[in-house]
Formats: sequence, structure tokens, C-alpha cells
Amino acid sequence: MTDFTATRAMFHMPEDVIYLDGNSLGPLPRAAMERMQGTLRDEWGEMLITGWNRAGWMAQPRDIGDRIARLIGAEAGQVVLGDTLSIKVYQALAAALELRPDRRVILTDSGNFPSDLYMAEGLIRTLDRGHELRIVAPEEVAGAITDEVAVTLITEVDYRTGRLHDMADVTARAHAAGALTVWDLAHSAGALPVDVAGAGADFAVGCTYKYLNGGPGAPAFIYVAPRHAETAFPALSGWLGHDAPFAFEPAYRPGAGIERMRVGTPPVLAMAALEAATDVWDGVDMDDLRARSIELSEMFIKGVEAACPMLTLASPRDPAQRGSQVSFRFEEGYAAMQALIARGVIGDFRAPDIMRFGFTPLYISEAEVETAIRIVTDVMQNRLWDLPEHRTRHAVT
Amino acid sequence: MTDFTATRAMFHMPEDVIYLDGNSLGPLPRAAMERMQGTLRDEWGEMLITGWNRAGWMAQPRDIGDRIARLIGAEAGQVVLGDTLSIKVYQALAAALELRPDRRVILTDSGNFPSDLYMAEGLIRTLDRGHELRIVAPEEVAGAITDEVAVTLITEVDYRTGRLHDMADVTARAHAAGALTVWDLAHSAGALPVDVAGAGADFAVGCTYKYLNGGPGAPAFIYVAPRHAETAFPALSGWLGHDAPFAFEPAYRPGAGIERMRVGTPPVLAMAALEAATDVWDGVDMDDLRARSIELSEMFIKGVEAACPMLTLASPRDPAQRGSQVSFRFEEGYAAMQALIARGVIGDFRAPDIMRFGFTPLYISEAEVETAIRIVTDVMQNRLWDLPEHRTRHAVT
Repeated sequence: MTDFTATRAMFHMPEDVIYLDGNSLGPLPRAAMERMQGTLRDEWGEMLITGWNRAGWMAQPRDIGDRIARLIGAEAGQVVLGDTLSIKVYQALAAALELRPDRRVILTDSGNFPSDLYMAEGLIRTLDRGHELRIVAPEEVAGAITDEVAVTLITEVDYRTGRLHDMADVTARAHAAGALTVWDLAHSAGALPVDVAGAGADFAVGCTYKYLNGGPGAPAFIYVAPRHAETAFPALSGWLGHDAPFAFEPAYRPGAGIERMRVGTPPVLAMAALEAATDVWDGVDMDDLRARSIELSEMFIKGVEAACPMLTLASPRDPAQRGSQVSFRFEEGYAAMQALIARGVIGDFRAPDIMRFGFTPLYISEAEVETAIRIVTDVMQNRLWDLPEHRTRHAVT
Repeated sequence: MTDFTATRAMFHMPEDVIYLDGNSLGPLPRAAMERMQGTLRDEWGEMLITGWNRAGWMAQPRDIGDRIARLIGAEAGQVVLGDTLSIKVYQALAAALELRPDRRVILTDSGNFPSDLYMAEGLIRTLDRGHELRIVAPEEVAGAITDEVAVTLITEVDYRTGRLHDMADVTARAHAAGALTVWDLAHSAGALPVDVAGAGADFAVGCTYKYLNGGPGAPAFIYVAPRHAETAFPALSGWLGHDAPFAFEPAYRPGAGIERMRVGTPPVLAMAALEAATDVWDGVDMDDLRARSIELSEMFIKGVEAACPMLTLASPRDPAQRGSQVSFRFEEGYAAMQALIARGVIGDFRAPDIMRFGFTPLYISEAEVETAIRIVTDVMQNRLWDLPEHRTRHAVT
């Protein structure tokens, strides 16, 4: 049984804060402080250039990939870290389209994160070969997988509603239609059990600063199914994806397997924090995590719905169809979220009217969820959001 | 007059090391330690998600860009940080090719860093429209700029030899032929005065972990000339390059000017170290730096050549034609460099036979150069490199 009191103690949490936004940015793992200091002082500071060998900097993207692999149902050697999620989407999509040269449709849904859509648009424009980004409603994806589709580009858990796609079902349908799949695990990895191998996913990409607590802007990851790993060609063919980066050959030769999905020099400092964050997962069973996440989310929905009829549940009511977040619609959601944040309940807002609350068992307890319900109730019943100061928009919402 | 004793004191340097490899990885600025601790503890740790607004994380790529702009002859609002240099090469090249739709040649030289060539290859493959990467010898670039050329992709300072291209001359020739220019400033920014505006460069990209001391794998930068900034379309069209990232619109609309060259969520921790490193430049005059770099390099060449006839100068003899590094050819260069490193003189090796030494006045003194000459002389004259332990190849050379 996973010890969530122990994992909670591994994080730094500010006083008087109930943090229900780990789905946007995970909190600071205490070990990251010390690890980073060591990387600065003992590695960069003392080893200088020799740190690439002596401190293992060059192997980090693969080593951390091996550890994240377990959380998404992949095996060692199938995941590598680097760049941002947007870049990894581009890589996966470009490789998938090249594997389906006779097809022109990228199928996605309107619940996908906009950057995935934008990167697809940019790729389509670059290819200039008549590809189409076909955007359907989330519940229409299954029916829209026709033999025109080259690849599906789906985020498993909807960033606004928390709606969960059935990865195995969509993938099976895609394969039956001769299409490939790119899964975005931004809101899945570390949030619920994921099984890319079991589902037969072709490519998967994800981010490490949400449920994986790697720090703001932490590197992304990419998974390539072993059956494609030696044929998927990297459009972003950087030197660290070369078979022999330090031979400095004039022509590109893709590295073995997942290695070819590396691009430029890895961000060593960011990797240090992420590595420390990855340690937290060592004693965590994903089924325990999922059960606990559902308990906390159900408690929150029940409490909020009982007291706040002005909030409309935007997430699926069936917990089996949700990720690890709960969203409510409220017209004045922006102001309401600001009022909550001012009172120590940190969630976030997504336009036009979504209030999001993430439930992350690694560091959130039942007692906190109860307090959060009380504060939400107070803010909503007493219209505490209805102040000019809460309506002032910040750059980042 | 720049006070190089003061800048030297801003860096941590290990005992008994003479660091002549700042052209590969700059040393640790002391301020980076404290700055990083603050970013972890006071920003990520305490502000959590609100750090994006309260700590200014979202604006950092532009703010640091404004400060780097001064070092490369650009103005505020023309440079932005993010991703890796390889990614920035791809962005610049893709935008340039789209601005020259009727031309098919990317002109580069054999002294360019391989990742630039690889990224160009990957882009050409993705475009699949018959583009050609034409690689000529560095001294043949000027003559090879014909009206077939869409864009030149040149690294101003050759990573192996230190040979310096004449940016203004090449750019003028390119423009006369109707071509655009992408300049890679990896070995120029912070190494010598650069004037992208004066030279009329169209695009420039660079890295911040060499002469700018931003830390291993620190983010890259991109400059777009104001005349292209509103028309250059980003192939890597990520959400942070969108005109309104937090509106979460389904379709991409490029942001204003250089903002559109942002892609994904910025690496906040890496930016923190880089920002601290950028402070070092506040009191530095680039002409002073250049004069001092030439003094140190000339002293080294003179001393080494006088004592080590087995080493052949691979860099241009005329300091006006060199960047801030000096390279020698030696058949057993790998082993020789290992022997030097074992004795505290850290340079590096580039296949097949280049021994590189960087001269970085911010933290390298005349006394150190004298000691380095003595140690090189000892290693070479007494064949101290001729040991099995020095021939063992490491992963990173």
C-alpha cells in the first residue's frame, strides 16, 4: 500500500495553502533543492566541461526516460526526455505522417490542448502537401476514424474538463483503419495508470511539470513504440539524435531507437530538478494513486455540488471517465478563482468559464479537500468573488 | 575600461584548474547559486503556479533576450530565448525558406557545426520540395552565393578552427544575390563584438552556455531583423508564440514580432541561472573584451609554437580572422588533451585531430596563460600523453 503521508513529506508546501493546481504545476520536491545545489556546485562548478562524462549529464535524458517509462507502461529504452511538449508533438506527428505517406488527415478533438493543434498547423503548413487537421468533438473521435486518417493526435485527459479518452479503444480503432496514434499524456502521466504498450499506442508525448513535479518548464518526454523505433525518422534531426554525435560527421544518421528523438544539448539544470522529482515515485503504486485520486475528487464534487448550485460540473460525473481533475463552469469563474486563491485555495481558470481543481494524492489529504470545500462554499454563497480586485486579469491565467 | 579582475571574481573556479574551455561550457557564475536557490525556494516553492505572474517567469525569455541583444548589436524586443540552438536553427531556416519560395539552395560551409547541417537536412526532408544543402569550403562561401541561393546558413566562428567569417561582407553579397542570411553565433556571442543590425543579418541564432556562461544546456536565442519580424512565419508554431496564448483559441495566430519565435513553456530553472550569468556582462565593454582576448590568444600561440613544433596551428594566424579560441592540430590530439586535463589545463578535442583552447577574458588571466604554455610544453616535449590511460575514449569528447 502506497504511503501517501510519506510522499506528502517529500514536498515543500507553503503555509496556509491548499494546492489544487498540481495539474498545472507540481510543487517543489524537497530533494530538488539539494540536488540542484549539488549540480551547480559539485558538477557544473567543479567538473566544468568534464561533467558531461563524469556527472553523467549526457545520459540523463535516457536515464530519466527509463524511470518515467514505468509510469506510462513502457519499458526502459523507449522514452527519452528533452525540449518542450510542443516540440515533442511536432516530432511525433512528423514521424507518424511520414509512416503514412498516402494519407492526409490528422484527426484531433476540440478538447485537445491548443498548442498541439498549433504545432500540427505549423507542420501542415511546412509540409504543404494538402494535409488537413480535422477537429471533431471529443465524443465523436471514435466515429471519425476513417481510412483517410493518417494519425490521431489526442490528449488522453482533456485539459479543461478532465474527460478521459479510452486509449486502448481509440488506438484499436485507429489501427483497424490503418492509422497511427500520437497520445499526449500531459494530464495522464503521474495522474493515473497509463499503459502505452498495452493500448498499442504508436507514439506518446508528455510533460513533466504537472503531475511529475519536475519544476516550471521542465523537459518533455517522448515514447516511440518499439515497432516504429528504428523506422520513425526525426524531422528535427539534431546532433544528439545522431548515431555518433561526437564523430561530427557532415551527414545525419539517426541514432538507435529512441535516441534519435533527442535533438540538441540537454538542459542539465532542469534535468537535475526533474531527477529529484522522479525519486518521489519509487514507492508509489499507480493503482493506489488512482483509487485515492477518485476518493478525493468524489468528495470534492459531492461537497461543492451540495452547497454551490451556481457551479455546474464540467467534468464527467463517472470517475472512470475522468482524469485527476475536477472542473466546474461558472460565468464569473475568473473572479471566483482569484477569490479562492486569495483565501489559499489554489486552482486555476481556463477560458471561457472553467474553474479547475486538481487532486494529487502525493501531497493532498482528505482534510485539505474538506477545508477547500468549506472555502469554496463561503466564496460562492457569499459572492466574495464580486470585487474589482478579483476581476483584474493577469498575464497568465 | 572593463575591470576583468572584477569579472573574474564573479565566477567560481575549481582549485588548480586553468580553464580554457569556456568556448564549450562557461564556468559557474557565483550569483547563479543564490539565484537558483531563490527561484526554487521563494518562487517555485512558495508561489507555485502564481510564479508565472508574480515572479515574472513568463516574461523572462524576452527580458533576457533584451539583455543579450546588446551583446550582438540588436535592440530590445528583437531577441528571445528558448529551446536549443538546433531548434532555433530549424525555426530561422524554415522562416527564411518561406520568404524565398522560388529558390532551392541552402548554402553552408564545411566548417559549420554538424547539428546545423543535420537540422537543415531534416527540414529539407520534411519540405520534400527539392531543396539542396550546398556545402562549400569556408573560404569559398563568398564565391558560392549565386541567385540560386535562398539562404546562407553560416556559423560566424568555426567551432574547430576559430576561423571568423566577415558577417557584413557575406550578408551584403547574399542580399545582392537576393538571398537571406541565418547566422549562428554560438562561438561569437560574448566572444567578440557582434553587430547583427550593422551587418544587416536577417536571422541570427546562438547558444548561451559557452561564452555567456548560462550553464550546461542553457536555452538558445534567436534574433529576427525587424524588417522580417512581422512576416517571418514560425514553422514551430507553439502556444507561447501565439498572439494570445491564454485565450486558448483553436487556430494559430502568430504573436507580435519576435514573440512568435517562442514555442513551448519556458524552462524557468534554466532561465534563472542564465539571468544570473547575464548580470556579469553589465560592466563589460565588448571592444575591451576583444582586445584582451587577442592579447591572451597571441601570447598562447607564440609560447606554444616556440616550444612545440609538433603542434600545427589550425586557426588563422591573423587575430582579426579568428574568434576567441586557438586550435592546434596534432595526430594524437585526443591523448594529448587528456594529458593536459589530467594536469589541470582544460581545453577540448574535436575529431579528427583538433586541440581547442578558448580564451575568455572574463575569467582567464595572463598568468594562467603563461602556466598553460608551460604545461603544454611539458606534455608535448616529454610525450606525457603517450599512456594508455590518456587514449581511453570517453562518451563525450
